[in-house]
Amino acid sequence: MNITRLHIGDTLSEIAIHNGTVYLAGQIAEDTTHNIQGQAREVLAHIDRLLAEAGSDKTRILSCQIFIADINDFDGMNAAWNEWVPEGHTPPRATVAVRFPDPKRLIEIIVVAASS
Amino acid sequence: MNITRLHIGDTLSEIAIHNGTVYLAGQIAEDTTHNIQGQAREVLAHIDRLLAEAGSDKTRILSCQIFIADINDFDGMNAAWNEWVPEGHTPPRATVAVRFPDPKRLIEIIVVAASS
Amino acid sequence: MNITRLHIGDTLSEIAIHNGTVYLAGQIAEDTTHNIQGQAREVLAHIDRLLAEAGSDKTRILSCQIFIADINDFDGMNAAWNEWVPEGHTPPRATVAVRFPDPKRLIEIIVVAASS
Repeated sequence: MNITRLHIGDTLSEIAIHNGTVYLAGQIAEDTTHNIQGQAREVLAHIDRLLAEAGSDKTRILSCQIFIADINDFDGMNAAWNEWVPEGHTPPRATVAVRFPDPKRLIEIIVVAASS
Repeated sequence: MNITRLHIGDTLSEIAIHNGTVYLAGQIAEDTTHNIQGQAREVLAHIDRLLAEAGSDKTRILSCQIFIADINDFDGMNAAWNEWVPEGHTPPRATVAVRFPDPKRLIEIIVVAASS
Repeated sequence: MNITRLHIGDTLSEIAIHNGTVYLAGQIAEDTTHNIQGQAREVLAHIDRLLAEAGSDKTRILSCQIFIADINDFDGMNAAWNEWVPEGHTPPRATVAVRFPDPKRLIEIIVVAASS
């Protein structure tokens, strides 16, 4: 079975599609001057855009791993998440706190989704 | 291909099934008064129950990510794991230590499995 | 659908294959006297060997999670990665810093790939 890659970079690609499943690179905010809600909203917008390019959308997410830098940002992350996640199509999710290569980064999200 | 979701909540669903693969939300212990072995046993019992609802079981796990709060709990986690994991059907696994939103939480496990 | 497991141990298996997808256990360096570049090169060599056994290779990676112990090792990890990753076939990737059960361990990588 073929693999389709999109936004192929030298280090990573943003999207790989194989056998009806879409894998996204960990999505981060480019504007790291924002607080957790702002960074989370930017990340979720990246996910919307990439899923659309992959022929999927946020109602078709199969798995979501959320990494945050500060456990005190959990509620702020959830506020942005709950605005965004579609009722009746919420995905399996796990959230843990880690350290990021860029200390201004507050959130990174990994998504696996079904293509349509 | 259709997606089946089970235990659909406002923020996340516990189970998504697509194309023969079962994705579980990160499983945590509800009783956080227990030590690592107690919390790990509760988490593994949640996984058994959810996999059964998804038409799978612990002999059909494809990938397992274990997050623990304290690296000194690695041996206690493994003790509970080794009691539980079925001989001849052990899955690929990775274990790292992170911080959790609830500081009393000692373990979270993410499972991907094959439906039967 | 059948599951094929390879290198089946008492605690985990190194490889599970199901429905055209290959799941590897988190790969670590056995020689923890090496620095980040040395450990990363050993880990990437393990991945090459395991993917070959699974009928896959590094041009067919769908998802890669990299865990490092020290965010200051990000550039060293990337140096080893960029030597190794095949042009035009770079996978989706995410890198975060965590703690490992063995404090001399500097890196662990989880790979999901397509079988051929």
